[in-house]
Amino acid sequence: MQDFKQQLDFIMELDQLKRVYRKALIKCDNNRFENSAEHSWHIALMAQVLSVYAEEKIDLSRVITMLLLHDIVEIDAGDTFAFGEHADLAEQNQKEVAAAKRIFGLLPATQSQQFLDLWLEFEDAETADARFAKSMDRVLPLLQNMQNNGGSWSQHQVRKKQVLKRNLHLQTAAPKLWKFVCEQIDIATERGWLIDA
Amino acid sequence: MQDFKQQLDFIMELDQLKRVYRKALIKCDNNRFENSAEHSWHIALMAQVLSVYAEEKIDLSRVITMLLLHDIVEIDAGDTFAFGEHADLAEQNQKEVAAAKRIFGLLPATQSQQFLDLWLEFEDAETADARFAKSMDRVLPLLQNMQNNGGSWSQHQVRKKQVLKRNLHLQTAAPKLWKFVCEQIDIATERGWLIDA
Ligand SMILES: [Ca+2]
Repeated sequence: MQDFKQQLDFIMELDQLKRVYRKALIKCDNNRFENSAEHSWHIALMAQVLSVYAEEKIDLSRVITMLLLHDIVEIDAGDTFAFGEHADLAEQNQKEVAAAKRIFGLLPATQSQQFLDLWLEFEDAETADARFAKSMDRVLPLLQNMQNNGGSWSQHQVRKKQVLKRNLHLQTAAPKLWKFVCEQIDIATERGWLIDA
Repeated sequence: MQDFKQQLDFIMELDQLKRVYRKALIKCDNNRFENSAEHSWHIALMAQVLSVYAEEKIDLSRVITMLLLHDIVEIDAGDTFAFGEHADLAEQNQKEVAAAKRIFGLLPATQSQQFLDLWLEFEDAETADARFAKSMDRVLPLLQNMQNNGGSWSQHQVRKKQVLKRNLHLQTAAPKLWKFVCEQIDIATERGWLIDA
């Protein structure tokens, strides 16, 4: 029963991710900000739909679990805008590690370690599963911005080379998607949604 | 490339679930209504955490996919409050089937059929995977209401026997959780959050 109580505490803690707002906009809901919980749902399903484009051998259920839990640290550490000014990346990383320890630490020991390991694997992006998961996390905001006159790119004067760099995992993880992403970035630049630099 | 275009259309369509609001309240975000996308994320992770309580043999990755996609029909058919007046259940069911055909139909044929089958399996709740998935979908609102002075139960004069009935799948799918749920329902009734009838 001790385990169950810990699991319930963790499950209720998850509610907090629904109040972490990203810079991404939900066009169909009056361009309100997207929260990290619904974003995580969206990329998990996206991985399911696009798994056939994985170039390396992946374990889809591990990829999906990674995506479902990868943003939980934001409950304590907040969302970092991918193209914002990073005064202190090391400090942000420290905050996220502390958050992972506290929040996954709510769970019984074995589960806690399992979730922490998956989160670290995602962050390090050194396995095929993590690279594919990370690709999904990168591609969705691009799709959302393309459908919304540049969305958060336009609002924050993002540069073409920043978006290319951010999507670079796709080159290894899903080359067909990488080709598509490059085309979209060119279109966005032509339309003035991305700064040509 | 035809397949890929269809998959992108489906992925962008999913954004629409973020504007489908349920009766559940997010206590930590000023008691705003919860949307069905973030709800789906929450129960998918909950299934991962609580899978050890499954009494029957389940395939967790199928359960999680079911949970991620089970509410997509609400994009067209809207959310039905579990304890609302159901003037015409048959009509609502018809709407949901039409929604499933349209939305999953955006995908290439094989994927479309796979998603439709999983959705129907969840709805029918006749397999161990579906029963466990359905249990997760039922337990989370109970936990949310218990932490929020009765939440949507209090607001809508819900009766004890309605909640018991709604959680009945737990008896088979996860008897230990069923025991816990019964205790919580008793507490809620004592506190006047549920009508004792
Ligand atoms: Ca993210």
